[in-house]
Amino acid sequence: MITLNVDLDERSYPIFIGDNLLNYFLNNKNLISDYIKGKQIVIVSNETIAPLYLKKTLELFSSYQCKSVILPDGEIYKTYDGILPIINCLMENQFDRHVTLVALGGGVVGDMTGFAAAIYRRGVNFIQIPTTLLAQVDSSVGGKTGVNHPLGKNMIGSFHQPQCVIADTNTLKTLDDRQLSSGIAEVIKYALINNASFFNWLLNNMDALINRDADALAYAIKFSCQDKAAIVAADEKEQGQRAILNLGHTFGHAIETALGYGNCLHGEAVAIGMVMAADLSVRHGWIDSDTQQKIIELIKLASLPVQIPAEEKQVSVQELSRLMQGDKKVLDGQLHLVLINALGNSFITSEFDRTKLEQTLETFSTK
Amino acid sequence: MITLNVDLDERSYPIFIGDNLLNYFLNNKNLISDYIKGKQIVIVSNETIAPLYLKKTLELFSSYQCKSVILPDGEIYKTYDGILPIINCLMENQFDRHVTLVALGGGVVGDMTGFAAAIYRRGVNFIQIPTTLLAQVDSSVGGKTGVNHPLGKNMIGSFHQPQCVIADTNTLKTLDDRQLSSGIAEVIKYALINNASFFNWLLNNMDALINRDADALAYAIKFSCQDKAAIVAADEKEQGQRAILNLGHTFGHAIETALGYGNCLHGEAVAIGMVMAADLSVRHGWIDSDTQQKIIELIKLASLPVQIPAEEKQVSVQELSRLMQGDKKVLDGQLHLVLINALGNSFITSEFDRTKLEQTLETFSTK
Repeated sequence: MITLNVDLDERSYPIFIGDNLLNYFLNNKNLISDYIKGKQIVIVSNETIAPLYLKKTLELFSSYQCKSVILPDGEIYKTYDGILPIINCLMENQFDRHVTLVALGGGVVGDMTGFAAAIYRRGVNFIQIPTTLLAQVDSSVGGKTGVNHPLGKNMIGSFHQPQCVIADTNTLKTLDDRQLSSGIAEVIKYALINNASFFNWLLNNMDALINRDADALAYAIKFSCQDKAAIVAADEKEQGQRAILNLGHTFGHAIETALGYGNCLHGEAVAIGMVMAADLSVRHGWIDSDTQQKIIELIKLASLPVQIPAEEKQVSVQELSRLMQGDKKVLDGQLHLVLINALGNSFITSEFDRTKLEQTLETFSTK
Repeated sequence: MITLNVDLDERSYPIFIGDNLLNYFLNNKNLISDYIKGKQIVIVSNETIAPLYLKKTLELFSSYQCKSVILPDGEIYKTYDGILPIINCLMENQFDRHVTLVALGGGVVGDMTGFAAAIYRRGVNFIQIPTTLLAQVDSSVGGKTGVNHPLGKNMIGSFHQPQCVIADTNTLKTLDDRQLSSGIAEVIKYALINNASFFNWLLNNMDALINRDADALAYAIKFSCQDKAAIVAADEKEQGQRAILNLGHTFGHAIETALGYGNCLHGEAVAIGMVMAADLSVRHGWIDSDTQQKIIELIKLASLPVQIPAEEKQVSVQELSRLMQGDKKVLDGQLHLVLINALGNSFITSEFDRTKLEQTLETFSTK
């Protein structure tokens, strides 16, 4: 078991990464009790994950007063009203401020459970047990919680840090291939942001990752979490440099919203978004087209899309442009994008050429 | 103009109290700009207050990109979905993280606007312009925001501090008598908590307050805000002593929920709750019945009820008991109540006699 620490003063917490961690904690139940204040637990999961891991997780908390809430599976259910089943369960059981929510599932379950924890009785504790690669390397770490609005992704939410994160790599064995690739998109993001040698490691080890080699996955997860933990510790509420983690996301969120939540997986949209960021960077001469090709090659090796799927709803330049202008990275009317200077070197800027952005959007739009 | 400071490190903010403050800021617009980050404002008000003060408030922010949202008036609308008109307005206008929300109205408007500010894009700024006595002496100060759940009051929310509070005592002139009295209930609460001489001042000056004497009101507001600011500064997120501010509220919230939100004003329920706290304190011998009578006398002088209105829905012991057990002041199954040791001396305790509590509930129940 690897233990990483997210260093946020009194909100600091550990990330545990390892194979068969659920079993390990089950055999050492006293370890989990350090992260629980009261006697009450609500496990939140979804229809896909619950049949696989809910029984084991209920056992883990067998000494507590424990309820569970099963949400429908999918980004389309990550809505403002979608968290009401969690709140209603808490209210109906009169669970108090010492209750701990447990998010057992992927990014959607984690974001919704965290948001419910943030606003129930003005804030209660929660624990993340991410069961997808995407959640293990990204969404379960850093305290961003929230839900989508019909007009924009993750627009309603809170910063609310978990008490701990338990990333059991064994749960990735039940993940379908598309979900696995979606998680790898976020792993590639960390390489592109600040680590050229990790980028090369990924080029050499993508086969192993795709084939779920346990050691390769553990290394990629550890690297990603370490990177994210350091960035979050330096800028918890994204006043500045944390925004670097949004490489591919401003394009990606626009694609997700335009296609309709759930039609394109988050990581797939981020992959396309990173290709678009590379395209715009080439147009400015910040990287050459060889570098862009290397990025596209790595993304393709991960079985991820490099253009907006045409079989879904068609997406126009105008729609992408409007959705990007509504992104959280817009401040005082200025759109900020994360663009690429070199492999392993990204930067946040509002100083890019609007005509070149228009050209990128035209290249990638499908209408 | 009196300026008080709520001392919370980087979340510190001023409370401005005075007559005709809206006009004052209108004539000195640069003063308000210190509390606004971006260029965008959304004023949130309700159908009763907007016709009176919205025009003036729009003028105050005339140099900003300014929109307004008018909510229906009443506690019954303080629901989870009730804040969606605010969120939708923000989304439709693509307002960014630098937007400032302005709550123009009473406690309901303030709580809802504050909650919307807490969760829009994971948190934006807001300013309180409370127009009721209750909001000026209590709810606009301290950062408690939120909405009701059908099963309990204020169960969904956040701690989110405003940038400043502008309490214009002139707005109290348009308040109806029942609303004025409701606010006085919270003023009486501060006296009962920790200040016997303020209790005596209230006995001597209740006529002046009821008749809206400007000096008396200003004194009572200043005293109340000072008291609340000190308590909040010492315990922002109610880990301990801040709970003293809930004198009368655990009983009161149960009454409000049992009668149906809006059938009994918040301050009226708190008044009855304080009489019930006094009753339970007498049963323990912590105060004598002369002291209880003095409390009842003061509450009656404020034209506030001292028992649950019988003309509304009838309320049973069982219902009150169940609702109190669901209160936010319950921890690990233990109900905590604020009870009274002497005039101007209250304390938080879970060590009271359950049979005596039952007797108090029986005395006050109407079914």
